[in-house]
Amino acid sequence: MAAETMEQIVSLCKRRGFIFAGSEIYGGLQGTFDYGPLGVELKNNLKKAWWKHNIYERDDMEGVDTSILMNPFVWKYSGHEDTFVDPLIDCKTCKGRFRADKLGDSDCLLHPKLRPGQCEGQLTEPRAFNMMFKTGVGPVESADSFAYLRPETAQGIFVNFSNVLTATNRKLPFGIAQVGKSFRNEITPRNFIFRVREFEQMEIEYFVKPGTDEQVHDEFIKDHVDWWVDQIGLSRENIKLYEVPTGELAHYSKRTVDVMYKFPIGWEELEGIANRTDFDLGSHSRQQDTLGLSAKVKKNEHSTEKLTYFDHQTNKHLVPYVIEPSAGVDRGVLAVLTEAYHEDTLENGEIRVVLKLKPTLAPIKVAVLPLKKNEPRIVEMAKRLKNDVQRTGEMRSVYDETAAIGKLYRRQDEVGTPFCVTVDFQSLEDGTVTVRDRDTMQQIRIPSADLANYVRERVG
Amino acid sequence: MAAETMEQIVSLCKRRGFIFAGSEIYGGLQGTFDYGPLGVELKNNLKKAWWKHNIYERDDMEGVDTSILMNPFVWKYSGHEDTFVDPLIDCKTCKGRFRADKLGDSDCLLHPKLRPGQCEGQLTEPRAFNMMFKTGVGPVESADSFAYLRPETAQGIFVNFSNVLTATNRKLPFGIAQVGKSFRNEITPRNFIFRVREFEQMEIEYFVKPGTDEQVHDEFIKDHVDWWVDQIGLSRENIKLYEVPTGELAHYSKRTVDVMYKFPIGWEELEGIANRTDFDLGSHSRQQDTLGLSAKVKKNEHSTEKLTYFDHQTNKHLVPYVIEPSAGVDRGVLAVLTEAYHEDTLENGEIRVVLKLKPTLAPIKVAVLPLKKNEPRIVEMAKRLKNDVQRTGEMRSVYDETAAIGKLYRRQDEVGTPFCVTVDFQSLEDGTVTVRDRDTMQQIRIPSADLANYVRERVG
Repeated sequence: MAAETMEQIVSLCKRRGFIFAGSEIYGGLQGTFDYGPLGVELKNNLKKAWWKHNIYERDDMEGVDTSILMNPFVWKYSGHEDTFVDPLIDCKTCKGRFRADKLGDSDCLLHPKLRPGQCEGQLTEPRAFNMMFKTGVGPVESADSFAYLRPETAQGIFVNFSNVLTATNRKLPFGIAQVGKSFRNEITPRNFIFRVREFEQMEIEYFVKPGTDEQVHDEFIKDHVDWWVDQIGLSRENIKLYEVPTGELAHYSKRTVDVMYKFPIGWEELEGIANRTDFDLGSHSRQQDTLGLSAKVKKNEHSTEKLTYFDHQTNKHLVPYVIEPSAGVDRGVLAVLTEAYHEDTLENGEIRVVLKLKPTLAPIKVAVLPLKKNEPRIVEMAKRLKNDVQRTGEMRSVYDETAAIGKLYRRQDEVGTPFCVTVDFQSLEDGTVTVRDRDTMQQIRIPSADLANYVRERVG
Repeated sequence: MAAETMEQIVSLCKRRGFIFAGSEIYGGLQGTFDYGPLGVELKNNLKKAWWKHNIYERDDMEGVDTSILMNPFVWKYSGHEDTFVDPLIDCKTCKGRFRADKLGDSDCLLHPKLRPGQCEGQLTEPRAFNMMFKTGVGPVESADSFAYLRPETAQGIFVNFSNVLTATNRKLPFGIAQVGKSFRNEITPRNFIFRVREFEQMEIEYFVKPGTDEQVHDEFIKDHVDWWVDQIGLSRENIKLYEVPTGELAHYSKRTVDVMYKFPIGWEELEGIANRTDFDLGSHSRQQDTLGLSAKVKKNEHSTEKLTYFDHQTNKHLVPYVIEPSAGVDRGVLAVLTEAYHEDTLENGEIRVVLKLKPTLAPIKVAVLPLKKNEPRIVEMAKRLKNDVQRTGEMRSVYDETAAIGKLYRRQDEVGTPFCVTVDFQSLEDGTVTVRDRDTMQQIRIPSADLANYVRERVG
């Protein structure tokens, strides 16, 4: 049984230091969250698993890490200045402000709990509210000197297409991957880390010859769903694919399939996998009319490059199509927590909260616990063992002596530590320790010298 | 001989895909840079080495990852709204704008190449220009609904002090560490990735009992200099300590020691290690007059917490002192590149560019090269070997057949690949391959089955 309510997760996250509300001591800043000691490890482990699967274990992928602040022309030609908007309307009488597309469903944005229709006043026409954060750049205030915080990492990849191609001499098909922060001025951030104003993405732009795009699209959908299941531990029955209807496709998309996960708030998007055609590389190119683009693009008067690929088979330049798997890191963390959260009833009737995390994702791999904290030889051996394991640098470990052994196990269970190691009197005699498995609660004895290897083999 | 000019590094970085100017196809955005395929690996390896040393290999440190967007009260009470400013003056006659503290030294900010004194016009009084980027948050424009992009990661740690303390039950002394982006609206970004508007920091806030602060400060200075030398590979003679004079200390600092590195532009700060006293926790606390603070702080009317620590020995609450080692990730990358860059003259008179990177930092650990690219059995074996190594997921490797062997070696040398593996005719017979060491250029033969272990042992 996975988590059934968001409250179960939020409460555990705050109490055990996974995730805190941002700027909490000043009443917060809506739509921002801070990852605590365990959260940062879980999040980093998720990103590492993604990078390993998509970069290190493939032969056709390069990574990049591009700026959050970008030249505004990027967003002019990507289409975001025009289309990345929510419609807002005002009530002329009560001065309330509402989302035009959710009129009646949502509270007033100015006065909580006020709803349109209450005052029966006259409503304005919808105005476009752009969701990109804007900031002035440089010491001179002018209409030219500003930048947006990127609303997606993807464009940092597109504008570097030629740089990467030249530096690596890649042949099609190949991809460029990036993990990084993005920002969207959401009108109504909500549902914990699901819809936030500052978030992290894991995106791939995979460049292919036109005509091969549909097959590659299908391959990525399969590969990424398999990854969420096999490597990250989500249940296949908690994932479904949503074929975005033609009428709802983004302006750049030929086809988009969303990987939906069954969050406590219902089925919601975890990853979107889109066929962006030649829209992006075409949009950011100069002399577009010479490129034979299939996508409809805005005339580009500012780019200094043609973002094309020279095909040695045909001796012609072509604009590659792009398949884009785009996943949310924070949504990934939320899905992992949802899936891993379990409440077991023990034989004695006690409730055990346990996070059944994949060992690769667990923030702490090993907890070393002394059976008696007032026996100096046991304490000394346990601390030494903890340091030996920790100092391999490969696995975060903890030492804890601040409660009885049963309570110490519960503490580690609820943060997903796969292995609890107990040092007892027998350890002093023969150098063995007990290793307890989080999920089965079974214990075995092994020589303490074998501990690091034992864990390493099972953590992967 | 390390790099002597910034041009040597900039040119290599662009050509081989370490670092590109940000938004280059639109003429750039001053003070932003994008890390390419090799740069992202180098940078990630540096951050990983830092995290390993400061978190995993210690017993007294927790990590966090907090938001870039924070409640503006954070910056009011941290002192940044008041003091994080550069003074600007205008010339009333020529309308030029200059930095008041560098009058005569710097060009006009509006008209390049114009200098004050040229027109002999009347200058205004200096105005304070705040270096924090500001952006509106939420759908309502008002004086209250904005946030700054954080100019340092440190404050994300301070405002979470109680959250972390409660979740982890830590005892003094302990530290909280963070790696993340920060933003400063530098008036004149310059020197490649040395002074930029968007950058990354690796910061520790280490909390101690007052009275122990000076000793801990000294310990961190020694430990971190040793880390830059022993783990990261900077030469000790290229590092020196700069004791910041009392009159130049930041408002929060009791003592600051800068770790200076000999960059191609001269001796400049790589890391600052400051004793921030009880200024920060005191500044962000309510009821400050009950805390017995030693630092002078602004009266806080908005915080909901006292950021104190309960000392069981004295049964009293105290405000810990803070030692802060704060290093720039990008400056670290630049120092590593500077140090590693070498031009050797070979026996045949050719110049060899080689990046003598620590193997842990090298973007690519292994290059597998076929001696003959038109011998299918050699090509097949080389590709298989490359995949075997790469798919361990531990080490980035490449296969390259697009030039003669000498040129392939040069390519790998200049990006710092520690091991080049060549597959030749003997390999087909006895399964051995040659492994060439980047620095000595010596080759040895080993069984191909031992390759992954051979590299793993030397990469660390």
